[in-house]
Amino acid sequence: MSREGIARSLLTPTRRGSVAPFLVMDVMTAAAKAEAEGRSVIHMEVGQPAAPTPLVVREAAARALMEGQIGYTLALGIPELRQQIARYYADAHGVAVPIERIAVTMGSSSAFILSFLALFEAGDRVAIASPGYPAYKNILEALGCEVVFIETTAATRYAITPDMLAAEHAKKPLNGLLVASPGNPTGTMMTPQALSALIGAARDLGIRFISDEIYHGLSYDMPCATALETSNDVVVINSFSKYYCMTGWRIGWMVVPETLVRSIECLAQNLFISAPKLSQVAALAAFEATADLELIKAGYAANRKVLLEGLPKAGLDRLLPVDGAFYIYADVGHLTNDSLDFARRMLAETGVAATPGPDFDPFNGMHAMRFSFAGSTPDMEEAVKRLTKWLG
Amino acid sequence: MSREGIARSLLTPTRRGSVAPFLVMDVMTAAAKAEAEGRSVIHMEVGQPAAPTPLVVREAAARALMEGQIGYTLALGIPELRQQIARYYADAHGVAVPIERIAVTMGSSSAFILSFLALFEAGDRVAIASPGYPAYKNILEALGCEVVFIETTAATRYAITPDMLAAEHAKKPLNGLLVASPGNPTGTMMTPQALSALIGAARDLGIRFISDEIYHGLSYDMPCATALETSNDVVVINSFSKYYCMTGWRIGWMVVPETLVRSIECLAQNLFISAPKLSQVAALAAFEATADLELIKAGYAANRKVLLEGLPKAGLDRLLPVDGAFYIYADVGHLTNDSLDFARRMLAETGVAATPGPDFDPFNGMHAMRFSFAGSTPDMEEAVKRLTKWLG
Repeated sequence: MSREGIARSLLTPTRRGSVAPFLVMDVMTAAAKAEAEGRSVIHMEVGQPAAPTPLVVREAAARALMEGQIGYTLALGIPELRQQIARYYADAHGVAVPIERIAVTMGSSSAFILSFLALFEAGDRVAIASPGYPAYKNILEALGCEVVFIETTAATRYAITPDMLAAEHAKKPLNGLLVASPGNPTGTMMTPQALSALIGAARDLGIRFISDEIYHGLSYDMPCATALETSNDVVVINSFSKYYCMTGWRIGWMVVPETLVRSIECLAQNLFISAPKLSQVAALAAFEATADLELIKAGYAANRKVLLEGLPKAGLDRLLPVDGAFYIYADVGHLTNDSLDFARRMLAETGVAATPGPDFDPFNGMHAMRFSFAGSTPDMEEAVKRLTKWLG
Repeated sequence: MSREGIARSLLTPTRRGSVAPFLVMDVMTAAAKAEAEGRSVIHMEVGQPAAPTPLVVREAAARALMEGQIGYTLALGIPELRQQIARYYADAHGVAVPIERIAVTMGSSSAFILSFLALFEAGDRVAIASPGYPAYKNILEALGCEVVFIETTAATRYAITPDMLAAEHAKKPLNGLLVASPGNPTGTMMTPQALSALIGAARDLGIRFISDEIYHGLSYDMPCATALETSNDVVVINSFSKYYCMTGWRIGWMVVPETLVRSIECLAQNLFISAPKLSQVAALAAFEATADLELIKAGYAANRKVLLEGLPKAGLDRLLPVDGAFYIYADVGHLTNDSLDFARRMLAETGVAATPGPDFDPFNGMHAMRFSFAGSTPDMEEAVKRLTKWLG
């Protein structure tokens, strides 16, 4: 190879490093630009609470700052936080989880990396629902797994059923299954019975099960069941980002079967060393902020009501009641065949920013839009007004 | 398979998830236990500054806490911090780095993950020095790369030379090379000329080059040259953990060739979303803490002097003058064939905790010990006293 050829080849990203960007980032950039130009933008594109992190949480971080040395912690997290998470499972779900099985992580993100490495070899086939959170696919593929999309529709409230799992497994065996309830972008949930049945089906087929419970705490009509109520042989991933309003702290946790603890611990030591110490100390205080957090959730419930009443009147009438999280996933197929263009025009012509479906669904995403209602209620009312005028 | 067989297979970690633990963790546990029993322990096992994070840095975090919402940032980091890092390269090294090429990361740890995924496919062969930082091997292997150890000795100050690289490449082609200067555990450095020559040799052989510069700022006899002084076609990894005393904040950065920026950005969006926001704001203030940080470094220099004078008299005379970082890597082959046992006895009988070599060197680690001198000078004097008595 010539010297120039070598130099060029030195500069190309790998295949596995060439993952898709989040389209929502383009919406965010366009929304920020519109705002910088003095336009009024309603942010329904971002999947994070507009509310501040509760004061008691920030105060705990402030106290920790005064201690001086902010050092590494044990790879699995500070014992006090792991203990508190164990208490949460006992109190909220009536399940006993030994603290040894709890690992504190850098948000759910690092929990995905750790669990995918500990559960799946390169080449393993892992099923996820479509529509779903785009990072599932991208992390799995970056780590050499084969992603198997199971297409879901409004008919099953976007949930994978035991029958759908068995049918896919019969075509070619699956090694893993990852589900989220409440789901992103759909805002739908599985009933406790449906979740339990799916865990049983996966176990019977020899399929490793991961339950992403990041939106737990945010449900409006039914309880959030943890997979741990059904089985200890599953991996559960959770986070302080959503209910606890701590996105930028990058702090979450996972619960793993006892036999995986050492693997997760050694992987975490090597890949991450530890989660940020201030965030760990702060997260400990998040369990004292229930009154604040329930108030914020009441705001989401109000927002949900505004949208579920207003959007259908505006012409966005193909949607399911939101069970949980803070997303409405609207079928806009009667309005457009290109939700990317729809999102661009909506932002340009109404100042309402929302996320086009292809981020979440490679099959039918061009017919869908995700609206986040983690903002303020007046903003939601204004969004309905603008969309009514625009689509009217 | 029987139901029990399936259940068992559901609970085993993968091969790639079965990485080696850090042995230093065992030392830390034993040291903590000894301390809990009321014994006096001198901590020379931990690779982190004993000094607190500078006050100005903690004050910046405290101010950010008052803002309320601690949200996600852009995947590559807040622009102000990337700009400041660019200024650092201009001021300290006289190199112009466009901020587009700078990515803020969760410590050097996530920078390793991102760069390994963007630079190397599964199966690629990546060379690292032995002795070296154990996470290099473990992260590379977890991500499917083949690790090629190049054994180094005191004869080259534990550095890989162009000849050694060419010889290894001739045996079977290499795809990558990762070096650190100053090095961990050796505390040795490559001269600017040696680093530059090695980068040139790698380029000529078509080998992708990563320079781990995490100990930059901590050198005692020669300047810390960045790989960016030689080439833009390398990946540079750095961190606020060591010189800036910010281990537990989990904040670092990387500089990548322009053609890799988009890959790193999309990988970071998916795998990490963003680095912790408070840590990013705090890190920005770290550049104002030079006076404090140079004082802390002067303490390391004093510690280094105490040990380089005292350890040889105590009988630990097979060591190189430390060029940088805060480690002395001592050949203890005249005292033991089992540094694990040596470390245990030393802790039990003298209360001095240090790390046995096998963490860093699968070949000759049983003959070596790493002593960290990131603690206080009186502690170092006391350690010399105890070791003199013990070995005398």
